[in-house]
Amino acid sequence: MSTSNLPATAFIHPSGNNREAVAALLQQAMTQILKHLTTAAQQTPLPTVGALPKLVLPELPADTTTLLATIEQVLKTGMNPAHPRYIGHMDPLPTTASILGDMIVAALNNNMLSVEMSPLFSRLEPLLMAEIAQLFGLGDRAGGLLVSGGSLANLQALAVARNVKLGCIQTGLSRNEQKPVFFVSEVAHTSIKKAAMLLGLGTEAAISIPTNRNSQMDISALKDAIAQAQQTGQQPFALVATAGTTVTGNIDPLIELGAIAQMHNLWFHVDAAYGGALIFSAAHSDRLRGIEQADSMTFNPQKWLYVTKTCASVLFRDMGHLQRDFQVAAPYMNTEDDWVNLGEISVQGTRHADVLKLWLSLQHLGKQGYRELIGASDALTETFVTAIQTRHYLELASQPEMNLVCFRGCPDWLPTDQWDAWNRALQQYLLREAQAFLSLPRYRGQNWLKVVLLNPYTTEADIQQIFGAIDQFATSSVP
Amino acid sequence: MSTSNLPATAFIHPSGNNREAVAALLQQAMTQILKHLTTAAQQTPLPTVGALPKLVLPELPADTTTLLATIEQVLKTGMNPAHPRYIGHMDPLPTTASILGDMIVAALNNNMLSVEMSPLFSRLEPLLMAEIAQLFGLGDRAGGLLVSGGSLANLQALAVARNVKLGCIQTGLSRNEQKPVFFVSEVAHTSIKKAAMLLGLGTEAAISIPTNRNSQMDISALKDAIAQAQQTGQQPFALVATAGTTVTGNIDPLIELGAIAQMHNLWFHVDAAYGGALIFSAAHSDRLRGIEQADSMTFNPQKWLYVTKTCASVLFRDMGHLQRDFQVAAPYMNTEDDWVNLGEISVQGTRHADVLKLWLSLQHLGKQGYRELIGASDALTETFVTAIQTRHYLELASQPEMNLVCFRGCPDWLPTDQWDAWNRALQQYLLREAQAFLSLPRYRGQNWLKVVLLNPYTTEADIQQIFGAIDQFATSSVP
Repeated sequence: MSTSNLPATAFIHPSGNNREAVAALLQQAMTQILKHLTTAAQQTPLPTVGALPKLVLPELPADTTTLLATIEQVLKTGMNPAHPRYIGHMDPLPTTASILGDMIVAALNNNMLSVEMSPLFSRLEPLLMAEIAQLFGLGDRAGGLLVSGGSLANLQALAVARNVKLGCIQTGLSRNEQKPVFFVSEVAHTSIKKAAMLLGLGTEAAISIPTNRNSQMDISALKDAIAQAQQTGQQPFALVATAGTTVTGNIDPLIELGAIAQMHNLWFHVDAAYGGALIFSAAHSDRLRGIEQADSMTFNPQKWLYVTKTCASVLFRDMGHLQRDFQVAAPYMNTEDDWVNLGEISVQGTRHADVLKLWLSLQHLGKQGYRELIGASDALTETFVTAIQTRHYLELASQPEMNLVCFRGCPDWLPTDQWDAWNRALQQYLLREAQAFLSLPRYRGQNWLKVVLLNPYTTEADIQQIFGAIDQFATSSVP
Repeated sequence: MSTSNLPATAFIHPSGNNREAVAALLQQAMTQILKHLTTAAQQTPLPTVGALPKLVLPELPADTTTLLATIEQVLKTGMNPAHPRYIGHMDPLPTTASILGDMIVAALNNNMLSVEMSPLFSRLEPLLMAEIAQLFGLGDRAGGLLVSGGSLANLQALAVARNVKLGCIQTGLSRNEQKPVFFVSEVAHTSIKKAAMLLGLGTEAAISIPTNRNSQMDISALKDAIAQAQQTGQQPFALVATAGTTVTGNIDPLIELGAIAQMHNLWFHVDAAYGGALIFSAAHSDRLRGIEQADSMTFNPQKWLYVTKTCASVLFRDMGHLQRDFQVAAPYMNTEDDWVNLGEISVQGTRHADVLKLWLSLQHLGKQGYRELIGASDALTETFVTAIQTRHYLELASQPEMNLVCFRGCPDWLPTDQWDAWNRALQQYLLREAQAFLSLPRYRGQNWLKVVLLNPYTTEADIQQIFGAIDQFATSSVP
């Protein structure tokens, strides 16, 4: 092609004609990235972004200097999860293998749509997912798919559940005699309600079950809700449990819920987006007992396995469901024997090859490495929880079951209607004075502080520093 | 944390303690990647993958040598869209800026779920999407979202269409009096039917409209179908046009379809996943005339804008619909004034920051660069089409409207029931003898060859080489 006005480094020439220029550009960008990440501790965990200039699509190509200046600006103004006191969300600093994986995947630009468009990755993904499904004890016919985020994992699981139980692939839900409903904890992730909306069930089809003091689904309330749905002529078809709730990291009683699902012929889905990583824990994998009863589950390596976003999976006890109860064939696609075109059995079509970074991370760290990371975060969590419990003006939202602690100040020298503001001010104070980012979720109608102790470079000293700042803030707030 | 058994390069130390080791590892991987891409023309466009060994999750960490050997293997066995004669799918070689963007995004590991988790990217995306919506003439209230692939773009558009027209966010579709239906070309992308299935409408809600000889929706057949749906008590709510069909790259008559949609109060969605890029064309942007009437449209920079996967967008004439007719709020999330948490208005929640590579690519190439790329591929297409037309034993599937040519052999010395096998054999022959990958779609019940002339390094000489091989194959097949 004749493309004389394109910058020399617009693409990488397949015979190497611009090798030096491209290598220099990539090298400079890599140097900037490394400089940023190797000094992450000296920067703020959560930069502020000033007013953005009006954005205009440029007419002319940019030169390398402009491009690198943009990159510098981007690096400075991102959320900084590499900071040891960035502990506010389930968003980790990435494994090095993830960064490698994403570089390679971008360079190859393969497509998970079909085997032909990703000859290796379309084979690697089902093999790896089957291995991971085995870890959870899902049985011989189990496997899974990677999807771009946990919301899609929950969506795909509930779509299959709906199709299996209601048989509506062709005909849809309209003129359904009974109203289909399913049961889920009141503190479940919002993507469950979103899935109910998308699937044409309506958000009210997701019947909210109250939780106990530890944010776990209340079994007797669930039984009542099932009975009531049956009595009012509704059609219960699924039960959704959570293993690692968004705000407090608690786990629904999986063994009992699995039994109830079986008794009532409900599809049993477990949203273990966060908590699934406990399967790698030496001390606490038993907290997931019961998950082996799941018909489907969500598990997101993008969280506690430190893989870059997105890397989320939906696992099925019986992968045959995807062909029988989900697939909408693409008549124009060719198929290769033995291997499935993953785009035909996924909510997505064209898809990024997230499998490589997961596979490289698992190889680089090994199960041993992950076991150690999880063990180390257990120890930090204990320190954090003890520090809360020894302060009369702090309280836990629930008993932690993961490396996630939700707490708040309950300063008895102030009226309770000022506590929300107090906790919000504390969050801001910690960011300003201790360079510590804790998030501020709403929980049971109030402001709480949430801590996720993922970062392997967070130390006991960081935690002492945070509690020093909390004490200072508290003292200064006494009238 | 105490993590003594982790490999030294597992993560990048935020104060730089392992800087040298990490820099060496990233440098080695980058060298491998560059070596691969700068010799892409010497490799096969579509490698074969041998039998994979049984995959086992490793117990122990891998050393650097093993990791780099894995990377080498991966690079060798991927689809190779950088090859100048990889011309079989809508999957381009990537812009250099895309590779840079994906490196940076992986390193930062921000999250498009909320403004707090991606302070810059969550602002950049709506600004850039509004600019792109302006290009298409969608008006003052227009904007859009990036989603992970075109199937999700079509899903989100049809979800909003359904919610706006049927008002079913809370209550769902069950016990709907009338059966909701929409109209779409028989050659539309499979994701439209998949969306109908996911949305609880059922695949039969997507009423297939016959197409003319150029793969464009037949207007009078559409009018008949609308009348019939109304007469049989169904509830038409949307009309889906395609601008750039999957197999032949043709464009439905957008102006007429927009008028019909308006007359019947149907949501007008245009799937311009591929063809949307024509908006950057100097010669042929008028082929999209009528798209400005769309209520929503899909446009995927991951195709003709050469951005790495995934980079797909869904645009809306009125972004207000997303808050009014889609959003399922996350009660635990904090909101920042003025900026929307994009996870609340998207089919996804946690999401990769695809906006950066799009923004960097647009900056690096400029509109001028894209105009030139598209112009150059027009010229190649003309050469390709002429070469087909001058051969009596080849025929076009349709008159091309983009850089996409669908054709087949019609060797009159063979009975027609052998033509499918002949074309399949030709495809294999071209891969083997000319290192040229053309895809082999099914179209109107037969095998065709499909060519997408995206690669800026494809030359006239490549095309001559391909037709030389085609002639040889044809000659040798004469009895």
